[in-house]
Amino acid sequence: MSALTLEEIRAGLSEMGERAKRASRALAALSADAKNAALIRMAEAVETSAAQITEANRLDLDAARAAGMPAAKIDRLTLTPGRIAAMAEGLRTVAAQHDPVGRVLSRTVRPNGLEITKVSVPFGVIGIIYEARPNVTVDAAGICLKAGNAVLLRGGSDAIRSNLALARILNDTAVASGIPDGAVQLLPWTDHEAVKEMLKLDRYLDLVIPRGGERLIRMVVAEATMPVLKHYKGVCHLFVDAGCDYEQALKIIVNAKCQRPGVCNALETLLIDRRALAEFAPRFAAAMAEKHVELRGDAEFRKAVPSALPATEEDYYAEYLDLILAVRVVDGVEAAVEHINTYGSRHSDGILSRDQAHIDYFWTNVDSSTVYANASTRFTDGGEFGMGAEIGISTDKLHARGPMGADELTTYKYLVRGCGQIRE
Amino acid sequence: MSALTLEEIRAGLSEMGERAKRASRALAALSADAKNAALIRMAEAVETSAAQITEANRLDLDAARAAGMPAAKIDRLTLTPGRIAAMAEGLRTVAAQHDPVGRVLSRTVRPNGLEITKVSVPFGVIGIIYEARPNVTVDAAGICLKAGNAVLLRGGSDAIRSNLALARILNDTAVASGIPDGAVQLLPWTDHEAVKEMLKLDRYLDLVIPRGGERLIRMVVAEATMPVLKHYKGVCHLFVDAGCDYEQALKIIVNAKCQRPGVCNALETLLIDRRALAEFAPRFAAAMAEKHVELRGDAEFRKAVPSALPATEEDYYAEYLDLILAVRVVDGVEAAVEHINTYGSRHSDGILSRDQAHIDYFWTNVDSSTVYANASTRFTDGGEFGMGAEIGISTDKLHARGPMGADELTTYKYLVRGCGQIRE
Repeated sequence: MSALTLEEIRAGLSEMGERAKRASRALAALSADAKNAALIRMAEAVETSAAQITEANRLDLDAARAAGMPAAKIDRLTLTPGRIAAMAEGLRTVAAQHDPVGRVLSRTVRPNGLEITKVSVPFGVIGIIYEARPNVTVDAAGICLKAGNAVLLRGGSDAIRSNLALARILNDTAVASGIPDGAVQLLPWTDHEAVKEMLKLDRYLDLVIPRGGERLIRMVVAEATMPVLKHYKGVCHLFVDAGCDYEQALKIIVNAKCQRPGVCNALETLLIDRRALAEFAPRFAAAMAEKHVELRGDAEFRKAVPSALPATEEDYYAEYLDLILAVRVVDGVEAAVEHINTYGSRHSDGILSRDQAHIDYFWTNVDSSTVYANASTRFTDGGEFGMGAEIGISTDKLHARGPMGADELTTYKYLVRGCGQIRE
Repeated sequence: MSALTLEEIRAGLSEMGERAKRASRALAALSADAKNAALIRMAEAVETSAAQITEANRLDLDAARAAGMPAAKIDRLTLTPGRIAAMAEGLRTVAAQHDPVGRVLSRTVRPNGLEITKVSVPFGVIGIIYEARPNVTVDAAGICLKAGNAVLLRGGSDAIRSNLALARILNDTAVASGIPDGAVQLLPWTDHEAVKEMLKLDRYLDLVIPRGGERLIRMVVAEATMPVLKHYKGVCHLFVDAGCDYEQALKIIVNAKCQRPGVCNALETLLIDRRALAEFAPRFAAAMAEKHVELRGDAEFRKAVPSALPATEEDYYAEYLDLILAVRVVDGVEAAVEHINTYGSRHSDGILSRDQAHIDYFWTNVDSSTVYANASTRFTDGGEFGMGAEIGISTDKLHARGPMGADELTTYKYLVRGCGQIRE
């Protein structure tokens, strides 16, 4: 695709990395007010540059249509005036949030008088690798800057012109706000090789966050020389305990499965306690039929609901992202937990129960980032958690788990004040 | 080395991983009292099994002597009665510490009534890859168990018999304490291939911590499919600001360089402000000469101290771990920070100064895990930080930075209590 040789891309990437590192040092020392002022100027710049953004987006759309891109993807790629306004509004929302940098996480004075303060600091330079929607360019840059980080973006090739226009506007505004050139940069090369080269830049990049399908994430994990924070699939479960509020349970299940089936916190497998089956199954099957949800159940469930299709082992690992639901009958909360820890993806899982002992067992033993009692799994989300903007939902255990806001884009350091202490 | 085929090692590792995972589930649900009781029983078992440990260690020592191992390494490998007692004492110290699991990290009630609690939980299974000293087997297992994790250990081949004996004693005691088999396991294969296979077990291992030289760590980073927490070298700096307390500065420098030169938090490069040179250099050179420290300085320093050898670019990157010190004259705190961020390893760096503005600038801009003012870098240590036992000092930015205790061997999850909330 690119006319440049690999050597030239490498040299270009190295320069970008160096610039990003330099900008990150200045960003780390910036006050909250200065960062917020820059974010607000960026919001204004996005608005006043709407014509320029729309023109770049039109070129992407022309190329996409010529290549026969399906209508749904064309829609995701399109930047309407409303979507441009929403990007600007997102930057203002980020500006209005608390400063994630400089939080005192702990402070101790040791017997020898050393004063040790653990304080949140930016990572430095964060790489974001993402697909399709150009609004991610602005959202990701905004939240990274809020946390004092420079950002090196690698968007999808379909949106390259839109993304380059947006990144240039943000970076120019950063420069106009007194931040050194390089705070927001987007890779101009859409070759697969360019991503691989970017993933070798551990000298400059402190962290990489891939956002996209499982294949993209696996590639990033395999190639990256720096730490990766990732967001794999969400195979989310609800467990219907015997004797729970079945009416409430039905509402929660319908919401978790149907309110937005294509997202990672949607329900994919329902586990039903054997003792709840007779009473619950018919009402549940009716509610699902009304919502046109295809049920795939085990033999026991299909005895109660003969219209259900048979579930295979693969169904229990599946992230359908569609109006399909796997169902399994289990023998109590212990079997439910065993199923979830075996087939789940450690994302979001819940118990619907009135029995506090069962809830406690479920909470302690389910190894997932977010564990619910009597609520929809759809709440696993930075906004719903009160974090404001989010950069994604981590399925990792290292550093951050679950919804990640600007706080999660910081690390910490220890500041130690002495008065001549030496070690004996 | 091993008589087993790679296929057989793979199958064996898979079984170990499965056992570890099962044990980890039980450990995660264990109360603090139950964990501490197990740790104390382990301490007793180490003491009562001293003869058995010593015998296994004698076989390692025989093999090492036959292979011509140098005396210093033989000493490190040797388990004396005192060292065995120290291992047991270490387990008791860990037992006496606060429980790192179940700490409430935050709690919020959302406007819709959802109650979101962020609580610390174990990782699950932690892999530790280390060299030489067999006491690490007990220390690492103890701190992992304290944090509710099962541990898969891979020690050096020199200590294989000692390590196997110790791991068996610890695991047997865990089983006797009601924990499923597999809480403490040590790889019986000393092949290089076995480590590589272990690093593919991301299905079972939640985290790997390599402890050893830079080569070992780089290999682990390159091969691991699971997250790695690492501890690279420590190229630690002190900056002598103009007008600081030179007498105090000298004491701190002597301590940081000479108290234990072979460790990662020892001083490797001294930066001297140009305006401090004339007054400070002669006294500093005399103090270093008295301690037999070889100085390698830049041209400007060598004008002031002609006996110093010339420093090359490599000297500024060097972790000597020896009585050698690189010295450079810099133009103020900004140049000092620039040097540290360029040549340092982000471990521990300090400023010796009376100027609060300089200290603030240094603290804000030095990108290291621990940043000092007027104290020795030698304090970067879990014990000195009041963490009790430590598993190492992270030079990573992801998850944990600097000294890592049992708290840092936990992650978190969100527990969400609802009463039927669904997402609109």
